[in-house]
Amino acid sequence: MKIKNFKSRYFEDYILGETITHSVPRTVTEGDVSIYLATTGSRFALNYSEEFSKKLGFKSIPLDDILSFHLVFGRTVPDLSLNAIANLGYAGVNFVKPIFIGDTVSAESKIIGLKENSNGKTGTVYVESVGKNQNGEIILTYYRWLMMRKKNFELSNTEKVIPSLPKEVPFSDFTIPQDINLDAWNSDITGSNAFYDDYNINEEIHHLDGQTIEEAEHQLATRLYQNNARVHFNQHVEKEGRFGKRIIYGGYIISLARAISCNGFANTIKIAAIHSGTHSAPTFSGDTIYAWSKVLEKKELDKEIGALKIRTLASKNNSKIIFPDEKLPDNIVLDIIYSILIPIK
Amino acid sequence: MKIKNFKSRYFEDYILGETITHSVPRTVTEGDVSIYLATTGSRFALNYSEEFSKKLGFKSIPLDDILSFHLVFGRTVPDLSLNAIANLGYAGVNFVKPIFIGDTVSAESKIIGLKENSNGKTGTVYVESVGKNQNGEIILTYYRWLMMRKKNFELSNTEKVIPSLPKEVPFSDFTIPQDINLDAWNSDITGSNAFYDDYNINEEIHHLDGQTIEEAEHQLATRLYQNNARVHFNQHVEKEGRFGKRIIYGGYIISLARAISCNGFANTIKIAAIHSGTHSAPTFSGDTIYAWSKVLEKKELDKEIGALKIRTLASKNNSKIIFPDEKLPDNIVLDIIYSILIPIK
Amino acid sequence: MKIKNFKSRYFEDYILGETITHSVPRTVTEGDVSIYLATTGSRFALNYSEEFSKKLGFKSIPLDDILSFHLVFGRTVPDLSLNAIANLGYAGVNFVKPIFIGDTVSAESKIIGLKENSNGKTGTVYVESVGKNQNGEIILTYYRWLMMRKKNFELSNTEKVIPSLPKEVPFSDFTIPQDINLDAWNSDITGSNAFYDDYNINEEIHHLDGQTIEEAEHQLATRLYQNNARVHFNQHVEKEGRFGKRIIYGGYIISLARAISCNGFANTIKIAAIHSGTHSAPTFSGDTIYAWSKVLEKKELDKEIGALKIRTLASKNNSKIIFPDEKLPDNIVLDIIYSILIPIK
Repeated sequence: MKIKNFKSRYFEDYILGETITHSVPRTVTEGDVSIYLATTGSRFALNYSEEFSKKLGFKSIPLDDILSFHLVFGRTVPDLSLNAIANLGYAGVNFVKPIFIGDTVSAESKIIGLKENSNGKTGTVYVESVGKNQNGEIILTYYRWLMMRKKNFELSNTEKVIPSLPKEVPFSDFTIPQDINLDAWNSDITGSNAFYDDYNINEEIHHLDGQTIEEAEHQLATRLYQNNARVHFNQHVEKEGRFGKRIIYGGYIISLARAISCNGFANTIKIAAIHSGTHSAPTFSGDTIYAWSKVLEKKELDKEIGALKIRTLASKNNSKIIFPDEKLPDNIVLDIIYSILIPIK
Repeated sequence: MKIKNFKSRYFEDYILGETITHSVPRTVTEGDVSIYLATTGSRFALNYSEEFSKKLGFKSIPLDDILSFHLVFGRTVPDLSLNAIANLGYAGVNFVKPIFIGDTVSAESKIIGLKENSNGKTGTVYVESVGKNQNGEIILTYYRWLMMRKKNFELSNTEKVIPSLPKEVPFSDFTIPQDINLDAWNSDITGSNAFYDDYNINEEIHHLDGQTIEEAEHQLATRLYQNNARVHFNQHVEKEGRFGKRIIYGGYIISLARAISCNGFANTIKIAAIHSGTHSAPTFSGDTIYAWSKVLEKKELDKEIGALKIRTLASKNNSKIIFPDEKLPDNIVLDIIYSILIPIK
Repeated sequence: MKIKNFKSRYFEDYILGETITHSVPRTVTEGDVSIYLATTGSRFALNYSEEFSKKLGFKSIPLDDILSFHLVFGRTVPDLSLNAIANLGYAGVNFVKPIFIGDTVSAESKIIGLKENSNGKTGTVYVESVGKNQNGEIILTYYRWLMMRKKNFELSNTEKVIPSLPKEVPFSDFTIPQDINLDAWNSDITGSNAFYDDYNINEEIHHLDGQTIEEAEHQLATRLYQNNARVHFNQHVEKEGRFGKRIIYGGYIISLARAISCNGFANTIKIAAIHSGTHSAPTFSGDTIYAWSKVLEKKELDKEIGALKIRTLASKNNSKIIFPDEKLPDNIVLDIIYSILIPIK
């Protein structure tokens, strides 16, 4: 088939074990970083100060890890997301190597599981996606599973393969930046004097700021990642859809929650892993996003660096801090568990 | 006259044969390219991957040709567009040389025709505009004609000069990128395996995606080009105007149509020429743009490169594909005929 | 106190003579300049043409002075503005050294005055803020005074210290760009042939263009400067607030007024100083900004360069030029007095 007006793939188009090379490798520029900042308001010093990043031993400014994730994810959208009915989940995002301005990001996804649903109309596709730089080095990896449309509504009774996905990325798989000079880590620069020892398990942190999202803002951000999933951009279609309006890319909510939580984790060296994430409710233009976090676990990785496992909730239009044990209230839009590396001082 | 609050020129201010050097030459940056991407969602691999463009023999990433056009066009606006009642048309846009990041774009326009209208109140001005880089090399050239206000409403009976404008840019005037290494052209990178031989004359392609335009998006894009024509930016005036709202720069619609049509022409090497273009209806914030194309003509330029002449229509708020023989339906906002270069594989 | 969810400082937290080092030094990129352009529409040639700036003797393109101000100001917001009830004023902004792309901007503020108000609930804090580049060289300095909340509503009877602030930056304190080659200054490039001798004291200039502000635009610009003052971003809170909507950062209005007034002062070499500025009324999304200026004073600094002292008024939703002697009409949102350097030709 010659690809001219590509409608993306259906469940039947995925083959167990196949590796899809995603198109349009993307060279990261200073412009991308500025737009990321302008659409999120992040204040993590390492990602915006060349002076600071070089003193720490980086060759230049490393990208915000969530921006790196979006750039890899964006590559995969035409092949994975366009016909997806639902992003059922993702897990095991392991941030292996930072991206620097000038790097070219490419991505590939391996089909690791397929499960036809009993209604015959849909199926679940499990993938392992890998982002690489221009030298072929792995930037990040993650698992994702999606519910896809079928072309043919008869049951095909293909073999059901459900992979066992990791519940979390273990500490032993975390990558610590090589040769980092933490003597240069400086509270005056990051804006916070809270380090590894200052956090307690079960401690809750309210990140205070709320950010109201405009339609233009999430569209600009999502286009920047070349994520062209239609639900984010086409009001002519969406006005007849389930919500009557465009749905904001869930990753943009992760970005906002992470940017807001700089007031709480300003001394982050890097995100080591995102263990799991749930977009528990959709967000729309006009919603105001708040975030709060709970420290779940602590681990000293070496003498200088510790890991905090954090659960962050983001809400829309409600700033009241709450960590429900069971069902999430309706206004919670994101429930994410991730680990950061932070200096021990 | 000392230029302090410049109200632009009237019909009588143009002199046949005069060349206007447009002000504010503009150095192109990585930021410009990122904003172009964020406001259009383009996925043409050549314009966003340094790896790919270098393998093909480019010194770095060439700008999207439509962005190049906007940057040249933006230079001309203060001298040509501010008092224009209507952009009557443009023709013969010839893309001679790519722009690279770091290049400085300047523009000049020669007055090649003048025609006073019989009502005495307006006149048509014909120009040939040329965009150059910092070495004085021509980037692109085009013809344009505009209806201008007069200062004096009496007929001046100046000599009428109507230039003969080209109906199209002939194949022989196309510029093929020098020393391009098409062995490095790669379907996995562009996302499409459709090459010159896979297109048929009269074939129609629906480009599928629709993009809804927000007021902030077209304003950001249009300001980026330093196109400061007032109708795009001033709601305080436009709310009393013909449409009651700001009119979107027609060039932004070309950008969206072109970005959407990447799903159809992903293997474009470059736009060789825009033969003609009509903005057949205005677009406004909230409109959703769709695009479809018809292949009009094919020509092998050498063993490796062919040219496709394409007619692209863009609609607002209607995704039904149609190529009317005569009058365009009201929802068609752009009717453009252009040629692309595409590998023969 | 460990800084995790930083609520900024109260009046009692400031100590006379203390110098606060503001966090998150910021490396300026090409992306920042492009977003500044896309959100303002500036056409000052020097800030967008590398060719022109290098011919004049600059090592590369200097940043728009108002962008430089925002980047320094943005550093100070977490420590000074978050609990401020009102920005009472600023004065004596002296632009000492230009910022270039690649420079890293940091800022510090010295507490130079403290005055508890008689109601016991608030106090005025006076600061002198200094922006520096990565070499420790001063970029710009200014004075500012803010009304802050108190934690404790009893009068503390601390010593009242009200500093004497300069009414203006004297000519003798202006910094002229070193080794500037004004032979290369070119009317064709700047778009205006009006130089020092073409301006008269008391001359009034209407800058014509109006720009309507969208919510996304001011949010993008203000986040770019990492100014995270809550009133600009949180509709969920502001809908219950004094105006029922988000308030636009006053500095964004300065940027728009300055960009619009390029049609009047296109031959600006630099802003030497902002003597004083008043944000006389708030602006909101949907407002259209106009600007006009009056020349207050002229001074030849040397044979080639003169200074114009200018009063610029910006209005919302009213384009009628007026310079009131006393009370400003309600629609005036900005009253600023500043000096520019301009060639003597």
